[in-house]
Amino acid sequence: MTLLFTNATILPMRDSDAVPRTFTGWVGIEGNRLTLVSDSREDADAFRAAHRADLREIDCRGKLVMPGLINTHCHAGMTLQRSYADDITLMEWLNDYIWPFESRQTPDEVALGMTLGIVEMLLGGVTSFVDMYYFEDRCVEVAERLGIRAVLGCNYFDSNIEEVFPQVERAVGRASTGSGRVRIAVAPHSPYTVSPENLMRGKALAERLDLGLMTHIAETRDEIRIVRERFGRTPVEHLDALGLLGPRTIGAHCVHVTDSDIATLVARGVTVSHNPQSNMKISSGVAPIQKMLQAGACVTVATDGTCSNNDLDLWEELRTASFLQKSATGDPTVLPAWEALRMATANGARAMGYAEGELGVLREGALADLIVVDLQKPHLQPIHDVVSNLVYCGKASDVETVVVDGRIVVENRRIAGIDLPELYARVAGAVRRITTAD
Amino acid sequence: MTLLFTNATILPMRDSDAVPRTFTGWVGIEGNRLTLVSDSREDADAFRAAHRADLREIDCRGKLVMPGLINTHCHAGMTLQRSYADDITLMEWLNDYIWPFESRQTPDEVALGMTLGIVEMLLGGVTSFVDMYYFEDRCVEVAERLGIRAVLGCNYFDSNIEEVFPQVERAVGRASTGSGRVRIAVAPHSPYTVSPENLMRGKALAERLDLGLMTHIAETRDEIRIVRERFGRTPVEHLDALGLLGPRTIGAHCVHVTDSDIATLVARGVTVSHNPQSNMKISSGVAPIQKMLQAGACVTVATDGTCSNNDLDLWEELRTASFLQKSATGDPTVLPAWEALRMATANGARAMGYAEGELGVLREGALADLIVVDLQKPHLQPIHDVVSNLVYCGKASDVETVVVDGRIVVENRRIAGIDLPELYARVAGAVRRITTAD
Repeated sequence: MTLLFTNATILPMRDSDAVPRTFTGWVGIEGNRLTLVSDSREDADAFRAAHRADLREIDCRGKLVMPGLINTHCHAGMTLQRSYADDITLMEWLNDYIWPFESRQTPDEVALGMTLGIVEMLLGGVTSFVDMYYFEDRCVEVAERLGIRAVLGCNYFDSNIEEVFPQVERAVGRASTGSGRVRIAVAPHSPYTVSPENLMRGKALAERLDLGLMTHIAETRDEIRIVRERFGRTPVEHLDALGLLGPRTIGAHCVHVTDSDIATLVARGVTVSHNPQSNMKISSGVAPIQKMLQAGACVTVATDGTCSNNDLDLWEELRTASFLQKSATGDPTVLPAWEALRMATANGARAMGYAEGELGVLREGALADLIVVDLQKPHLQPIHDVVSNLVYCGKASDVETVVVDGRIVVENRRIAGIDLPELYARVAGAVRRITTAD
Repeated sequence: MTLLFTNATILPMRDSDAVPRTFTGWVGIEGNRLTLVSDSREDADAFRAAHRADLREIDCRGKLVMPGLINTHCHAGMTLQRSYADDITLMEWLNDYIWPFESRQTPDEVALGMTLGIVEMLLGGVTSFVDMYYFEDRCVEVAERLGIRAVLGCNYFDSNIEEVFPQVERAVGRASTGSGRVRIAVAPHSPYTVSPENLMRGKALAERLDLGLMTHIAETRDEIRIVRERFGRTPVEHLDALGLLGPRTIGAHCVHVTDSDIATLVARGVTVSHNPQSNMKISSGVAPIQKMLQAGACVTVATDGTCSNNDLDLWEELRTASFLQKSATGDPTVLPAWEALRMATANGARAMGYAEGELGVLREGALADLIVVDLQKPHLQPIHDVVSNLVYCGKASDVETVVVDGRIVVENRRIAGIDLPELYARVAGAVRRITTAD
């Protein structure tokens, strides 16, 4: 089917726009591509004439059309553990709650957690996400079925590398027979939980299979101390010495990085995934995002998992990213709304390995991932500056319709192909089994 | 009409509950009071039998009933200025945007801004708010009509005290003929913008009319410097020396307070209104809330105005309050979800001058201000800990029904007596007039 979004306020998020630019116009989709992004009524009429047979028009008066949001770091399979253990110390959290829970989860239960997480993300306007967890081979099917775009990172430690590497191969095989929306990556957990030898094995595997890499970098002060004691280097220096940093690497967190580390991240073209609410909630520290942006780093924004946040709402992360930099630097002009939104669109697309202009922007020829935001809400009125309203006041619940790869996956806040009460019942059943198993 | 909420998950937020306690049960309302809060089916049947004639039952299966949220500091009349000027320096913001805009606003336009602000708050589960702005005498009618509970603080500077004091008297007169839900307070702007003489006049007026007081205290480093240069004291010391601090005073912000200041706030019984997102967005600093709580201060939570936030969403403030303390102290156990929620309910009620157990709690005999939260949302599942889910994941849009003073003011997310498209059109018209006036 061909889609035409009419009479919309369009926020294209083009890199060439030095300041936020919106216009009233039309967005047309053929197959999985945007083929019309225009303020010209004649262009719209020509599009209509060319697609009379199978055209569906969606009236967007009072609504805004923009690129879908891109969440560059989460653990969607952990969603069964949302609010399982909060407000306690890290070691109590891991030893008494997270690890026992994880040891009891089956691959099907992880897939169920990912289903719930993806449903939450799609309903909140997240059209693409980067995941990092176990059993990603099992989860390729979940992402395919729900219609989201994804990079699934197969997470490994020294302790389970022999189990995970075959999962990477299986995941690649499954993704290769699908829609093309799902990509696989290799995801060593971190420089303090994976040995240099096993980090190198991950890099070699990624090269052999032509995959991206991702890892947690410099998330906590403890990590800095451990890496320093073991290797006499910062985590960034350590990973760089092993050759793991490059334009196909996503570094999650990067909280405790030196100026020299930042220069290295920029020189290697690493994408930084900033997780502000997670960093705050588990007291990791404040990432020097403003410094990174000034140095020319590609910074993106992410939710982290529901154990440390506790939701997958990228709108809240966007404004928290901005607020936290303004607070930490003492300068209210840093990380303005426009820049935060770019982190969640064009920069996110680059993190996922898409070429510039291919994703995260409304441009003729780009992939058709977009969201329709209802501006007729009390908290989005009046409209002095629609970008400020979106970034500082926009809610996941303002997203009315979501298109991924040319296909409507959410319409009028209803998600296609999912019986929500049945999903909640299955989630409750799985949680009951896991938490009462001995 | 008598109301009975049935089969609900009830979160009473009782002070006697050392840990969060919920139960499944019934909440009954007669007039403006809660007269049934029970887990007993027999009690519910007796309530039904006693009120057969005019009983309305509301089925709350899968939903949660809890006290309405209380926003202890905002400038609702400024809502026409939402996102009018962001990401710029304070002096540019005031000189080029806020002050010119304010100088052109009519009392009717301020009332229109307050209407929009109250609509946003009610739809987000805020049943009570404390306001601080101009033309509060004009706005008594707005709060009465929309059905919200309010303390309206008449804000004055040295420059306009002669205009504002008569407004205080008029506001008191108008509130006295109303529902009793609207109270008036005297609101000197701050210790650096109001002279000692005029602070004392405000205090005398409050005493004469038996009103509460509120002021901004220690919001920015500049304020500390100015008060120190002029009076050789901290803002708290200065206000205390003038006798302005007492149990009927709300101190907004209290960001830059010393240990000795905190001891003074506790000793005088001042309520602190914490505005975490505003403090972050305009780079004010981080209020030492954990220290204040440890010292025994009554701390509440608030949104501040839409110029510095930019919405009136208390759910986001709740979690930001918790996240920001965890980040600033480096301790993930501080300000747990339960304590943050108490700040927005029982503590808020105390700030507004209500006796303990009268408001901000579900208890037989208390005022009937409550909200119904729909738990059947992806971001609120599974339910390991409903308080964590509410505080860390709850959204304004999860609030389905809102009762203030025994009256349903929002039902199934529709607000009574308001034509929203017509409101937005009037708001747009007012904004156009103000910003194009010469």
